[in-house]
Amino acid sequence: MLTLPQQFRATGLCAGIKKSGIKDMALIVSDQPAAAAGTFTRNRFPAAPVKWCKNVLAQGGQGRAIVVNSGIANACTGERGDQDARQTAVRLAERLGVREEEVFVCSTGRIGNFLPMDRIEAGLEKAVAELSPGGGELAAEAILTTDTRPKTIVREMTVEGKTIRLTGMAKGAGMIEPNMATMLAFILTDAAVEQAALQDALRQAVEKSFNRISVDGDMSTNDTVLALANGAAGTPPLGPAHPDWEAFVALLELMAFELAMMIIGDGEGARKVVTVRVQGAAGEADAELAARAIANSLLVKTSWVGEDANWGRVMDALGYSGADVQETRVDIHYDALPAVQGGLAAITPQEELRAVVARPAFTITIDLNLGDGQAVVYSCDCTEEYVQINI
Amino acid sequence: MLTLPQQFRATGLCAGIKKSGIKDMALIVSDQPAAAAGTFTRNRFPAAPVKWCKNVLAQGGQGRAIVVNSGIANACTGERGDQDARQTAVRLAERLGVREEEVFVCSTGRIGNFLPMDRIEAGLEKAVAELSPGGGELAAEAILTTDTRPKTIVREMTVEGKTIRLTGMAKGAGMIEPNMATMLAFILTDAAVEQAALQDALRQAVEKSFNRISVDGDMSTNDTVLALANGAAGTPPLGPAHPDWEAFVALLELMAFELAMMIIGDGEGARKVVTVRVQGAAGEADAELAARAIANSLLVKTSWVGEDANWGRVMDALGYSGADVQETRVDIHYDALPAVQGGLAAITPQEELRAVVARPAFTITIDLNLGDGQAVVYSCDCTEEYVQINI
Repeated sequence: MLTLPQQFRATGLCAGIKKSGIKDMALIVSDQPAAAAGTFTRNRFPAAPVKWCKNVLAQGGQGRAIVVNSGIANACTGERGDQDARQTAVRLAERLGVREEEVFVCSTGRIGNFLPMDRIEAGLEKAVAELSPGGGELAAEAILTTDTRPKTIVREMTVEGKTIRLTGMAKGAGMIEPNMATMLAFILTDAAVEQAALQDALRQAVEKSFNRISVDGDMSTNDTVLALANGAAGTPPLGPAHPDWEAFVALLELMAFELAMMIIGDGEGARKVVTVRVQGAAGEADAELAARAIANSLLVKTSWVGEDANWGRVMDALGYSGADVQETRVDIHYDALPAVQGGLAAITPQEELRAVVARPAFTITIDLNLGDGQAVVYSCDCTEEYVQINI
Repeated sequence: MLTLPQQFRATGLCAGIKKSGIKDMALIVSDQPAAAAGTFTRNRFPAAPVKWCKNVLAQGGQGRAIVVNSGIANACTGERGDQDARQTAVRLAERLGVREEEVFVCSTGRIGNFLPMDRIEAGLEKAVAELSPGGGELAAEAILTTDTRPKTIVREMTVEGKTIRLTGMAKGAGMIEPNMATMLAFILTDAAVEQAALQDALRQAVEKSFNRISVDGDMSTNDTVLALANGAAGTPPLGPAHPDWEAFVALLELMAFELAMMIIGDGEGARKVVTVRVQGAAGEADAELAARAIANSLLVKTSWVGEDANWGRVMDALGYSGADVQETRVDIHYDALPAVQGGLAAITPQEELRAVVARPAFTITIDLNLGDGQAVVYSCDCTEEYVQINI
């Protein structure tokens, strides 16, 4: 069972949006107003629910509910899509007795289709009736698409002698019918947190976690991470001035990181998690270019499936990454084993390198030996199943 | 049979570089000095043979021979690799009685391994002995890796009453063992062409053909396109001042384009060729960004396999492409059928769009309606076979 923080209730159910008849609507409600924070896709065509959530945050950053549907993304749906997202919030707000500007709406699924508003409204009615403090797990299931398992995390810490709880859930890249992959994550806490501080902390945590993972290099129109802090634990508001602030931020970052790792570990068709670490770049931007080129290279990602330490493909990706590179300075390690030294094959036997690539998780460290720039991206292998899922 | 231009001979044989025992060495020789031109990978880690070829061109642009090995890329091999490429040219030049600076060397295969120079030298001896005017087809076979068929083209035109012939051959993205995909293409002619003009014409032709195709977005360390013009047809030198120059350039462009289409049509695991055309962009650079993002998107490429007109994935790629875009202005056509109008689903029934995607070749036209920028990229679908080939 997924324990929610105090004064949160949740549920997940089948609203009939997906033809398959599996759960496709999740609802999370805070029984008292919560400070809210969010980060969203940088895609230039954000879905209607993303625009709605940004609007909610702009109204002062107070949140009472998060409603999620899977199956239809409500993206590229124009004004009607915007109306549908708003209408979802309005109807839910009516039933909960809260303001519509306190309701976050998230969608994931196929782009270009309209939401079936009759089913959405019927689903909302049912969801509100079924809300319960023990319903977190149902919600964590209902947000999934082709994820093979729910992704949840619960942590506690002590603030001025009182226990606060944080509960996180996420969905990764996946689909039931040919849909866009969308990343969603929600972190709930009964701590009291200053809204602006929560927004800063969330943005920082996302930058080090969800923004560092890549399943297929495609950025969704619907990616959304939300945090709600309702203060039900009775602790004084956390913020930069509070002695426990740094511990809280560190915990938030850790939870975001663990959820991100669950997403990459359950990437579509993926069998292993590969950490691509670039160091010694001329600058941060170069390190980022290099790490992304390697982590997104189809040839690199397919080579991991075959458990081949094909560092030549890593070199190739480095060479076209656009980063400043010098062939004779490049060192590459697979976990602790040198694969490339000064741009040339190191003496490590190929079988030993293969044994590293055969692990369920390993790290490729690329040292460009040009400066101090570093970056890390978490990737996964690209298997035949990835293609099968997305056909 | 592949007809070579006058005074060209060629062959292809098994030199024992690949373990599989199939042809892995090609040799093309012009019996008289030819004006030479070349374009090469922009990867920052060019393979040793690429560096050697650039060096040959810098020596004045005269060529007598092209030798190609498949199986080993001779990339990321440092000074020893450079020596091996040079030694290949030196040994061949000795046997042919030409200068080593007239010998082009190309390699394709796995990165990071050294060439087996004893086998290379034995192969050269055999290849020189087997050269013949009818050996073009053997050469076209020997440069292949996982290509499923040779890629050749022959065209003729008349210059001042005499017939000149152009013969082209290419290899596409493919591999036998886990190797880098490399693109190689050679165009031979018995026309006389001014070297600088040939270089300009080739660069222009490559820009409109080989640089417009994308199988997997990975740029090889070894990509090479070479042209040799030996003047054996007895025509006066072609160049910008000659009345037939434009016709010659147009023919060269056409041949490069057709070879490029053969490569994309035989892309690893590919079953269809998709032309991605972006128009109405704010500028050329934006059009290029948008077309490349769509042509390289894994989600877009996998959707074509399933013959799903999933234009939502096209919109998604547009949205993260970095190009200037405005959602309500975007129009998308699948061949002649409107799929998106003003950023929204057009009225074309989904089955009609599916019928377009089911074709072996079709065009997606994206009009951003913002300006005059246009770009076209030729792509292919990404199937399970692509992954299987590259594991």
